[in-house]
Amino acid sequence: MKTNVVGVDTGDDFLYAQIAERFASQIENNILKAGDKLLSLRALSREQGISLSTAYKAYVELENKGFIEARPKSGYVVKFTPAQYPAQTLTNIAPVQTETASVDDLIRHVYKTLTQEGIIRLSLASPSAKLIPGAKLNKAMAEVLRVSPTSCTQYEDIQGNLTLRKQIAKHAFNWNGQITENDIVTTQGCMEALVFCLKAVTEPGDTVAIESPTYFGIFNVMKSLGLKVLEIPVDPENGADLEYLANAMETVEVKACLFVPNFCNPTGALMPDHRKKQLVEMLGSRHIPLIEDDIYGEMYFGKTRPRTCKSYDKEGIVMLCSSVSKTLAPGYRVGWCIPGKFLEKVISLKFMHTVSAATPTQAAIALFFETGRYDLHMRNLRKALHTQCLRYIQLISEYFPKDIKLSQPKGGYVLWIELNARINSIELFNKALKHNVSVAPGQIFTTDGRYKNYIRVSVGEPITKEIEAGLKMLGQLIEES
Amino acid sequence: MKTNVVGVDTGDDFLYAQIAERFASQIENNILKAGDKLLSLRALSREQGISLSTAYKAYVELENKGFIEARPKSGYVVKFTPAQYPAQTLTNIAPVQTETASVDDLIRHVYKTLTQEGIIRLSLASPSAKLIPGAKLNKAMAEVLRVSPTSCTQYEDIQGNLTLRKQIAKHAFNWNGQITENDIVTTQGCMEALVFCLKAVTEPGDTVAIESPTYFGIFNVMKSLGLKVLEIPVDPENGADLEYLANAMETVEVKACLFVPNFCNPTGALMPDHRKKQLVEMLGSRHIPLIEDDIYGEMYFGKTRPRTCKSYDKEGIVMLCSSVSKTLAPGYRVGWCIPGKFLEKVISLKFMHTVSAATPTQAAIALFFETGRYDLHMRNLRKALHTQCLRYIQLISEYFPKDIKLSQPKGGYVLWIELNARINSIELFNKALKHNVSVAPGQIFTTDGRYKNYIRVSVGEPITKEIEAGLKMLGQLIEES
Repeated sequence: MKTNVVGVDTGDDFLYAQIAERFASQIENNILKAGDKLLSLRALSREQGISLSTAYKAYVELENKGFIEARPKSGYVVKFTPAQYPAQTLTNIAPVQTETASVDDLIRHVYKTLTQEGIIRLSLASPSAKLIPGAKLNKAMAEVLRVSPTSCTQYEDIQGNLTLRKQIAKHAFNWNGQITENDIVTTQGCMEALVFCLKAVTEPGDTVAIESPTYFGIFNVMKSLGLKVLEIPVDPENGADLEYLANAMETVEVKACLFVPNFCNPTGALMPDHRKKQLVEMLGSRHIPLIEDDIYGEMYFGKTRPRTCKSYDKEGIVMLCSSVSKTLAPGYRVGWCIPGKFLEKVISLKFMHTVSAATPTQAAIALFFETGRYDLHMRNLRKALHTQCLRYIQLISEYFPKDIKLSQPKGGYVLWIELNARINSIELFNKALKHNVSVAPGQIFTTDGRYKNYIRVSVGEPITKEIEAGLKMLGQLIEES
Repeated sequence: MKTNVVGVDTGDDFLYAQIAERFASQIENNILKAGDKLLSLRALSREQGISLSTAYKAYVELENKGFIEARPKSGYVVKFTPAQYPAQTLTNIAPVQTETASVDDLIRHVYKTLTQEGIIRLSLASPSAKLIPGAKLNKAMAEVLRVSPTSCTQYEDIQGNLTLRKQIAKHAFNWNGQITENDIVTTQGCMEALVFCLKAVTEPGDTVAIESPTYFGIFNVMKSLGLKVLEIPVDPENGADLEYLANAMETVEVKACLFVPNFCNPTGALMPDHRKKQLVEMLGSRHIPLIEDDIYGEMYFGKTRPRTCKSYDKEGIVMLCSSVSKTLAPGYRVGWCIPGKFLEKVISLKFMHTVSAATPTQAAIALFFETGRYDLHMRNLRKALHTQCLRYIQLISEYFPKDIKLSQPKGGYVLWIELNARINSIELFNKALKHNVSVAPGQIFTTDGRYKNYIRVSVGEPITKEIEAGLKMLGQLIEES
């Protein structure tokens, strides 16, 4: 019987993953504790009726995720239990009087460090170039240029490359979306999609509700469009606080919401599906459009992709925006939006502002989707990112003071860390920069001076000796502050 | 002596061109008239002391430009004298009450015809794909992807690709510009450059002076930014009417001007250099920024590139915008601006709205410039376009009614044609479309219903039997209207 199972399981990618997951769950629930010895490979193979190679793969998976480690003569031992996690971050912080100009300067300053040589970058919320299949993408580009009768030199269709739109529509199945290519407009990255959606549903002077903390690019562009910002606190487990939003709407005329329900940057918060449904119904009944930034939606660590608010949208009020900037190639500037009933308005804005999006880059990404390379890459990227995230958490637990509080993201690129209240993260940023470490200070994720003692650490770069040294240095500087 | 000259002239590209030009000048000045017989090749060779091949090349050049034709047994005969040109168009037309919405619909309708199959396109003001060296551009793209350590997948510098900025700075010498790479910001096409410049110097509700008639994209984007338009009449010989502008500024608070001094679309008007200087001084003394759209500046038919207003700008009030969309590859969406003293503001807007421009397309265009391919291509393109323009004029003179008035462009892609006052060009557009001919009606180049009896014909497509048939059909429809 057992030989049978061994026969069946050869090459089965799912079996080892299932076993690894079972162990991980026991470790997460503190049933297996740090230091506990695991069964030998042979014993595991016998007990579970699996091949030795499957048992080995299961342990390697756990090792990669940092749950266990192989010790000489002891075999595999539980290394790290998430119960050791620093406490979850709390983000419901009151606003503080501040000068907006200094925040702008700070953002520019942080961004400038990104192109400097020799900097250990813990501040960029996107994938390392090491995780991107550049050569394969080059091939896709060469191919589309070769087959295009005009070498992709001519204007693309205003609404966007048709193949790309079809592929985006197909991928929408993953989040329960019933979308066709006609519902989609391509853009120059997600940022341009957000600009067009905001312009489509607001006028200068209007108020738009956003999460707090949130990506500084969002309130920057709102300022540039003359919009007012209403910050809604984010709960790590539930996403934007819908009760707070409902109350705020009693007194403030909110013209639109711009939320990042899946793995919001910088908190990593994931809004549960039932809350997404609740949000869409709440806004739908008030005829308030929801701009949904789903740029991190594909970067889930769990088994299934989280749904989107768009998937609950019956009236066309949700305008979903996304791009390949966090998954494949930020430099390609290929994004899109699915603007519901505001479709014609968004197409018209795109035509007015940029005529059409670039032809060669859209075509190359379309081919990358069409040939299945994108899906393959995403499976690898998600795995790598989850592993990296766990590793960063371990190193931070090791090197940072014990009184920090840390987010527990279920996806995305960032860790949000609350430091001791005495610490000013801008001072920390400047000190770290002197040691060639770049980290994002909390104040750049708000318009009103909150999150003074918070920092955001990106997990996009694979751990190297330099990264580890950078985290150690950061821990020391916090300790000394 | 003569044998000497023959020896010297072999392979001299300039000699035949000089001779052709001398003939062209005689034809233009009506010294040689339509039907006049030219010297035989042998006689010309003897008379001028040139080789037979040079004489032949001179006549081919004249034939290409449509001045002469080879007739069986007669040899070369003068075919067309520019004195036969229909009268120059007049464009100082009073505004008419109209509905803006219908103009928008019309523009969208005209643009939709551009991607339809089987349409004879006389309505697109950009080069035919036939005139673009697609294979060479593909090579440049392949090369930049190959040498980039990250396959051009990562964010480009916010201000723009450095090599590209250096090349743009170098090319600014051609219009007397003293510019460095630090003065330049790259953008997604010229349209995005105009948007950033307008946003940098205006607020919603402000008034901006533009030429009339002008490219509909310009007032469309102004409407989208909440700006008011003041239309300044364009004189075909002098460009925008500066006296009219000066008078208007006495009563209206003009916050900025957005002009196309070189080969304005659709009139093709070229503002003389002394008027450019006058304009810059006039605006400089009033501290009013001038957004200079120089997208057609490289498409001159004469010997030298016209200067820009920017070349007279001492105080940094001129914001020059341009792109490669009219010269090389509209589909690449590579543009730039030189925003003078508003540089930091434009960089900041670019960062907010689109983070940075696409990496691979900027790099490919930069390499195309750097290797000298761009200059080579431009020499060929200008020659081809001048020839095409003369051919279109001939066919229009032949097929259109005699009472039309026609612009005499010194560069650019378009002919602006005044038809008999009884004709409504929107009706004409609709009729022509039924015969699969697309032409731009005059009303889309104004906000207030002027130019009802005008059309714009593009000369970007090389003459084919289809194009000739399209022009003939258009002539008939005008005749019948």
